[in-house]
Amino acid sequence: MIIIGELINSTRKVMREAMKEGNVDYIQDIAKKQDEGGADYIDVNAGAFVQQETKYLLWLVEKVQEVVDKPLTLDSPSPEALEAAIKTHRGTPMINSITAEKERYGKIMPLVREYNAKVIGLCMDDKGMPETAEERLNIAEKLLNDLDRDGVPLENVFLDPLIKPIAVNGEYGMQALDTIEGITRLGTGAHITCGLSNISYGLPSRALLNQAFIVLAMGRGLDSAIIDPLDNNLVSLVLAAEVLLNRDPYGTNYIKASREGKLAK
Amino acid sequence: MIIIGELINSTRKVMREAMKEGNVDYIQDIAKKQDEGGADYIDVNAGAFVQQETKYLLWLVEKVQEVVDKPLTLDSPSPEALEAAIKTHRGTPMINSITAEKERYGKIMPLVREYNAKVIGLCMDDKGMPETAEERLNIAEKLLNDLDRDGVPLENVFLDPLIKPIAVNGEYGMQALDTIEGITRLGTGAHITCGLSNISYGLPSRALLNQAFIVLAMGRGLDSAIIDPLDNNLVSLVLAAEVLLNRDPYGTNYIKASREGKLAK
Repeated sequence: MIIIGELINSTRKVMREAMKEGNVDYIQDIAKKQDEGGADYIDVNAGAFVQQETKYLLWLVEKVQEVVDKPLTLDSPSPEALEAAIKTHRGTPMINSITAEKERYGKIMPLVREYNAKVIGLCMDDKGMPETAEERLNIAEKLLNDLDRDGVPLENVFLDPLIKPIAVNGEYGMQALDTIEGITRLGTGAHITCGLSNISYGLPSRALLNQAFIVLAMGRGLDSAIIDPLDNNLVSLVLAAEVLLNRDPYGTNYIKASREGKLAK
Repeated sequence: MIIIGELINSTRKVMREAMKEGNVDYIQDIAKKQDEGGADYIDVNAGAFVQQETKYLLWLVEKVQEVVDKPLTLDSPSPEALEAAIKTHRGTPMINSITAEKERYGKIMPLVREYNAKVIGLCMDDKGMPETAEERLNIAEKLLNDLDRDGVPLENVFLDPLIKPIAVNGEYGMQALDTIEGITRLGTGAHITCGLSNISYGLPSRALLNQAFIVLAMGRGLDSAIIDPLDNNLVSLVLAAEVLLNRDPYGTNYIKASREGKLAK
């Protein structure tokens, strides 16, 4: 499972304040904790600073890379902010995100190709967020076809089916799962990721819903997720699901985590 | 989800001692707690008392039904013990279990039919425990065909794919999940249940593996399980999965459980 740590995000109030105040210690501490919690990528987002996004994003890249060796996920819809951040970033980053929207695709794809970056591809196009699993899958296929045609290796792509809250429509869970299975069946080598917590929006006891959903989604082929790596219950269940789906041969990782006392009780 | 409470089982040492000592308070307390924990059926097993199984089983039926209104799951391979227990049981019990073994089928099926009982059907035949998902599914189909032919309504049947430990073979999890999905696709109206904890046998941190496995299995169509209803983490994840799979319309049960403080933190 490829885990993208979601905590350094300016849409979270506590993090936005820390960015505003230049609270380097706090941000670096959260970066290190996500690293130790098993994150493979650390997402950095400065989108809340509308006029100064690039400045804050560059600062985040610099400060986080001072303390963490993992690559970062540069989280912005702005090609300018992304390009500046890629140039500051040591090593190969992940871009969050590209879509099948014509203009956004045209501006982000060249960055992905030029820097051989990983990239999160959202299943949406110029018609907006699709309603059915079939529409999502069609967009996923188009996005993969286009990226392949334009020379982006599909193993660098992380498709995100875009999860909608189950509180809005009881079918949204099944719809997301069916989309994930559909992408898996394409067998293109692209990864499948998702921003998990949307599924539980508007319901109580959200953590449990997020936990159950990630396990269900892994059962359909999800192999990456944008999560809080400090949520020990969640990470422990992910490790357990890897064993059950035969993605952790001989349970080596699971047994090691158990021995080290890292698994939830 | 139809939950069968597994705790009153003579193969568990603490319970065997309680049965031996005639510790009615303890057994009735565990029965009540499983009831309150959401069990739809309470399993009773006296199989450890080889020569006196019938005597102990009848005693269990009587003592448990004194304090619990839920029907019991009469857990024995012995037709004699089962028939005596059915006659003592108030209301319609579940029989645990029938198989596709010729002799066992021939003796248990008439009891199921005569008493209109629910019945757990294990996916095994005279060749023993099947190895592959395909073999399991073939046995499941044969068992369902035979029961249907013999006049047993298939909605009374709970097929158990027979889970084997993932520690023995990394494919056993996927194999069980594929069997469950195969039975679901038959669309016969039969339920699918399983003894959950076998999956984690021989590994550390078993509870997490059981939790992840039940969620994965629900994603493939499992609608019943033989579990410890006092395991709050497990039951909470089951309730969450029901919401995500749109089996709990508007999340009514989940929201109620959350408001009542019944969900795990």
